[in-house]
Amino acid sequence: MTKQQKLASESKVVTNQIVLPNETNPLNKLMGGELLHQMDVTAAIAAQRHSNSIVVTASVDNVSFNHPIGLGNIVTLEAQVTRSFTSSMEVYIKVSSEDITTGIKQMTNEAYLTFVAIDGKGNKVQVPQLVPETEQEKDKFASALRRRQLRLILAGKMKPENAEELQAIFINREK
Amino acid sequence: MTKQQKLASESKVVTNQIVLPNETNPLNKLMGGELLHQMDVTAAIAAQRHSNSIVVTASVDNVSFNHPIGLGNIVTLEAQVTRSFTSSMEVYIKVSSEDITTGIKQMTNEAYLTFVAIDGKGNKVQVPQLVPETEQEKDKFASALRRRQLRLILAGKMKPENAEELQAIFINREK
Amino acid sequence: MTKQQKLASESKVVTNQIVLPNETNPLNKLMGGELLHQMDVTAAIAAQRHSNSIVVTASVDNVSFNHPIGLGNIVTLEAQVTRSFTSSMEVYIKVSSEDITTGIKQMTNEAYLTFVAIDGKGNKVQVPQLVPETEQEKDKFASALRRRQLRLILAGKMKPENAEELQAIFINREK
Amino acid sequence: MTKQQKLASESKVVTNQIVLPNETNPLNKLMGGELLHQMDVTAAIAAQRHSNSIVVTASVDNVSFNHPIGLGNIVTLEAQVTRSFTSSMEVYIKVSSEDITTGIKQMTNEAYLTFVAIDGKGNKVQVPQLVPETEQEKDKFASALRRRQLRLILAGKMKPENAEELQAIFINREK
Amino acid sequence: MTKQQKLASESKVVTNQIVLPNETNPLNKLMGGELLHQMDVTAAIAAQRHSNSIVVTASVDNVSFNHPIGLGNIVTLEAQVTRSFTSSMEVYIKVSSEDITTGIKQMTNEAYLTFVAIDGKGNKVQVPQLVPETEQEKDKFASALRRRQLRLILAGKMKPENAEELQAIFINREK
Amino acid sequence: MTKQQKLASESKVVTNQIVLPNETNPLNKLMGGELLHQMDVTAAIAAQRHSNSIVVTASVDNVSFNHPIGLGNIVTLEAQVTRSFTSSMEVYIKVSSEDITTGIKQMTNEAYLTFVAIDGKGNKVQVPQLVPETEQEKDKFASALRRRQLRLILAGKMKPENAEELQAIFINREK
Repeated sequence: MTKQQKLASESKVVTNQIVLPNETNPLNKLMGGELLHQMDVTAAIAAQRHSNSIVVTASVDNVSFNHPIGLGNIVTLEAQVTRSFTSSMEVYIKVSSEDITTGIKQMTNEAYLTFVAIDGKGNKVQVPQLVPETEQEKDKFASALRRRQLRLILAGKMKPENAEELQAIFINREK
Repeated sequence: MTKQQKLASESKVVTNQIVLPNETNPLNKLMGGELLHQMDVTAAIAAQRHSNSIVVTASVDNVSFNHPIGLGNIVTLEAQVTRSFTSSMEVYIKVSSEDITTGIKQMTNEAYLTFVAIDGKGNKVQVPQLVPETEQEKDKFASALRRRQLRLILAGKMKPENAEELQAIFINREK
Repeated sequence: MTKQQKLASESKVVTNQIVLPNETNPLNKLMGGELLHQMDVTAAIAAQRHSNSIVVTASVDNVSFNHPIGLGNIVTLEAQVTRSFTSSMEVYIKVSSEDITTGIKQMTNEAYLTFVAIDGKGNKVQVPQLVPETEQEKDKFASALRRRQLRLILAGKMKPENAEELQAIFINREK
Repeated sequence: MTKQQKLASESKVVTNQIVLPNETNPLNKLMGGELLHQMDVTAAIAAQRHSNSIVVTASVDNVSFNHPIGLGNIVTLEAQVTRSFTSSMEVYIKVSSEDITTGIKQMTNEAYLTFVAIDGKGNKVQVPQLVPETEQEKDKFASALRRRQLRLILAGKMKPENAEELQAIFINREK
Repeated sequence: MTKQQKLASESKVVTNQIVLPNETNPLNKLMGGELLHQMDVTAAIAAQRHSNSIVVTASVDNVSFNHPIGLGNIVTLEAQVTRSFTSSMEVYIKVSSEDITTGIKQMTNEAYLTFVAIDGKGNKVQVPQLVPETEQEKDKFASALRRRQLRLILAGKMKPENAEELQAIFINREK
Repeated sequence: MTKQQKLASESKVVTNQIVLPNETNPLNKLMGGELLHQMDVTAAIAAQRHSNSIVVTASVDNVSFNHPIGLGNIVTLEAQVTRSFTSSMEVYIKVSSEDITTGIKQMTNEAYLTFVAIDGKGNKVQVPQLVPETEQEKDKFASALRRRQLRLILAGKMKPENAEELQAIFINREK
């Protein structure tokens, strides 16, 4: 493994928080925006570990909130870089919540965020290549291209008809 | 217009913030997660105005961050409900930043969030139908269906081959 | 309108907030000091828009709190510059609250704040003249002189007997 | 001194804070609204000590900000009840700042706030009479009536021509 | 292992934070009190995981701060319960910091905190016995008694001459 | 008293806070870590007053939390430097809480913290000698040496058998 390569697992970040009153809505559930804020911070640490540089958030993919997280519960966030491009990185983050009295833990969210590595003057810097090891890491490494195309289309930077990776999904019954 | 209908413009919410030190990264730019937090709060107010009930965030669509916003700049967020379904609503939010000394204002982000209206016990409640008036309101009302299909696919709740609205985009060169 | 003049309406700022737990007293009502903080920030944005420079708060006029604002309610703040002097500006700010479930909105407070425009070294800078257009803008523009005299008296910088604008009010039955 | 009476000095509250980054403007000076927030909290403690009940802010008199307070400086707030009425209290608060490296302390602000004592259901409750002892306490006790008239006039609850205490000031050259 | 027993490793909690501006002193280093706050929260999660109940902090042992942690650095906190008593638990927490650009990680602090498990009414509840597995876990389990004696002495609840575990340390040259 | 000497009383700092929702656990009691944070800030102000320089926290001695402090209560912190060494200072801090409705005040905590005085580049600077006046100040000045030995032992910087001040305590029945 050359100097320009780093293992996916080296970027792993775990964090645990208790839901505080000011982060909740009138029904005492963690507000979505507050959780997004914590997801961004944790994912940014993973990207900083991989790139050893300051990073700025470039995008957040679609996030859905299915399981409300109550006041006083523990929120666990686990982030890891899935693939790096020239100066950007995609990070996968998984959120789970834990009820203190029952000890029951359930997965509540997951998302992909991308970050760009920059130097002290704000210029983009090159980041190491990511080397996936486990099956899951390899899967996410491979599917990163498809998610990237969707991001480019949604941001209006790529035409849908040029997104070959994505088309395979939408027209696969014709195959 | 019956009691169960409300105009899109009735839900409009504008908010202005100054970027504070704790919201910035080491390069003095507003952090992405902090902005997502403010977007969620402002969009939630629009959904609350439309539904006259407590709302919880159900999803945030892909957001990209193209223009960094500096410390001390003014962030303007404008949100409005685009379409309502049985008990959920889609909200469009547009973010722009304003440099104080030059007075130059530029659009920095936009996003679609969805919210579910609930009562004091956490049960879903029905929301009024949304009536679009302007051309832009009507466009967003119509395209809401397509965005909804993409959300369902991304959340694994719909198969891509059943997303007729979306397919039209990806296979349109074949038409 | 010369370069040194700007319309009153160009400085208009609106902002909407949800009352969070940490901003409330034990009866779940927004604390007065927290509201003053938000009023100062919103009024400062109006003054920054008019002057295109950093501003510092110079004074806050008498504010009274008549209607308590409950946890979870929406607070709307609307600020606009009323008159500018050499390097200072007076800003009028109106606060109203909105109950989510009833949709009822009521005005809760109003205040006048003054700001001084400064450059990056902290020196005062000249600000554009303000041009009022509507009747209400013209009224506030005219009465700004009287409020200024009261401020100077209350700050011990003017003797009451020299405050001609104000005297007219207190001795008018003798006229 | 009966049970319904308490000394002015019993309500005295002192507090010391260090100015933190998030409380400052781009020139690293404490923002006016942040200081008002701290003044309200400290004055409320004085009113709570006098009344032994929850209090809500009823008004803040004109405050002017003459001396900027820098990041890292110490802010000292001293509050004491000056006079009580049926269920309300006037509190005087003095703010000074201290430069750490020089040790130089200077007075920066002063203000009068009023609070209303309430019970757990939000109903007004009667408060003890205040007994001033020192010369300064007696002066502030006496002048409280004049400030009260000004507040009522400014809030539109009293006509200027009925404010006998205040008139004496504005027409005293005629005496 | 009976129902009343749990492994030490089951309580393990890791958390990662980025040092934000508001948490730093004028030299841009993380303030000690802010770090103590984060240590308390993380250690409390470990105690909650072991006891499946709400916990309150009972004590914090001597903490020293040897290596300043700079703005923007990553703070990693790792906590694990070392021993449980009837209704209290001792938690060991280790803090390390990581410089983003160099990737260098160094241990900065460690501490022992104790927590008491309580029910919804604030009454103490019994907690499971802790079962240490590794050598390090067994060492900390054993030495917990000595630290407990020191805590009792420092809190004035035990006379030094009765602290047999501790005496062995101070008079060991006589052995 | 030479220029290099300052009275203990000159460093005295008092502060009063109201317990806010976000600082409490699910039972509405002030969290231990939050209190430690406030203790650190208040003690740091005392050390800054004595040294007229920036200070960093070097250590916090064992703190126990015996009396829970409820939401809405007043927390009073009183800090004073007890002894200075070359460039470090020991500060004693006492915490009491006050129930608003009953007016009952009780002491809840006490602790000793040490701080190091530094200049703008982070280098240690010499601090004035502390001159104790009252009996209590003299007691704390004298016992500061014993606490310092315990700190050095607990930090692994002194061997227990060399801690003469401390040994006297643990082996005094043999005397």
